[in-house]
Amino acid sequence: MNFPSKLIEDAVNEISRLPGIGKKTALRLALHLLKQPETHTDNLTEAIIKLRKETSYCSICHNISDQEICSICLGSRRDKGLICVVEDIPDVLAIENTSQYNGLYHVLGGVISPIQGIGPEELKIASLIERIDQPHSGDPVTEIILALPSTMEGDTTAFYITRKLKEKGIKVSTIARGIPIGGELEFTDEVTLGRSILTRINYSVD
Amino acid sequence: MNFPSKLIEDAVNEISRLPGIGKKTALRLALHLLKQPETHTDNLTEAIIKLRKETSYCSICHNISDQEICSICLGSRRDKGLICVVEDIPDVLAIENTSQYNGLYHVLGGVISPIQGIGPEELKIASLIERIDQPHSGDPVTEIILALPSTMEGDTTAFYITRKLKEKGIKVSTIARGIPIGGELEFTDEVTLGRSILTRINYSVD
Repeated sequence: MNFPSKLIEDAVNEISRLPGIGKKTALRLALHLLKQPETHTDNLTEAIIKLRKETSYCSICHNISDQEICSICLGSRRDKGLICVVEDIPDVLAIENTSQYNGLYHVLGGVISPIQGIGPEELKIASLIERIDQPHSGDPVTEIILALPSTMEGDTTAFYITRKLKEKGIKVSTIARGIPIGGELEFTDEVTLGRSILTRINYSVD
Repeated sequence: MNFPSKLIEDAVNEISRLPGIGKKTALRLALHLLKQPETHTDNLTEAIIKLRKETSYCSICHNISDQEICSICLGSRRDKGLICVVEDIPDVLAIENTSQYNGLYHVLGGVISPIQGIGPEELKIASLIERIDQPHSGDPVTEIILALPSTMEGDTTAFYITRKLKEKGIKVSTIARGIPIGGELEFTDEVTLGRSILTRINYSVD
């Protein structure tokens, strides 16, 4: 693609380095910014610069936080005995948005993937063990909930963490896999359907 | 959506103001930037700021240009008698990338749209007439090629310009509408297929 100006070429090249944004989309975004008031661009770039330079992570759960310790870890109404282990930050947001969980989190920062050269040392697993041995809140940790992706890498990570925690005598659970709410049986893939039969739960009417 | 940090909330809000980018994509982009080296963010924001503050437009054809007059208008090998009228800047890029056109351009900056309150005065139509009356290159303009969108607004604009140019005695043409190269007849919509029959061209084998 030939550009009429070096400025737009540079902008398109930089914007198209973002994931999922190609040259055509980048050009569309650049031309959009040119048509907007200058304050729009100022606000956008300022927010991005501040995000990158000032964002810090919670020293306990490794979630994004404005303070040294995040609001979830400090929350007085949170169940400090529960720790939900997730792959990355968006997972915390997803679970928080369900309003179904009231415990703490632990962000691993990835999952074990030998192909990508990610071993247990690259993840925040040692810091999880440390949290269990010396809980920040003082309350003992009673259960670790693994909310990891349902992939080979996720399963490997779950297996590794479970082995590590075996000697601690802490209950380890994993979120349920099965047919999504509202899902039709006939359109569910065989692996999920098969697993949902094997991991069936007791159905009781009181 | 609840965010763990004001910084990420601001960044997501600003990024999601861009066209075609929702909150979820904005969050993904923001988290991506957090994982990249700081130079990545610096380069991106610098390119966007420079684009917005320093971009100027060619005073003749209104295309983006680093100089007062763009390289196309100044091009010594360009046919100065031809002016291709387009809606906006991406159209110039699209035609340039075909390598099939060697004339000049005129960027209207939109098309006539009464619904959106865009009349002929909002567009660079007066400046097109001026270019024809007093050509910058000194060479007389012999043909105006209308390469406007095939919509009601595009057709209205084409009609308006053609009426305006009638008294000048300049040839006005429009780019061909028809079945795309490689397109199948059976999958072409009726309007396009019907038009392609009405506007058929002589087929000659020499």
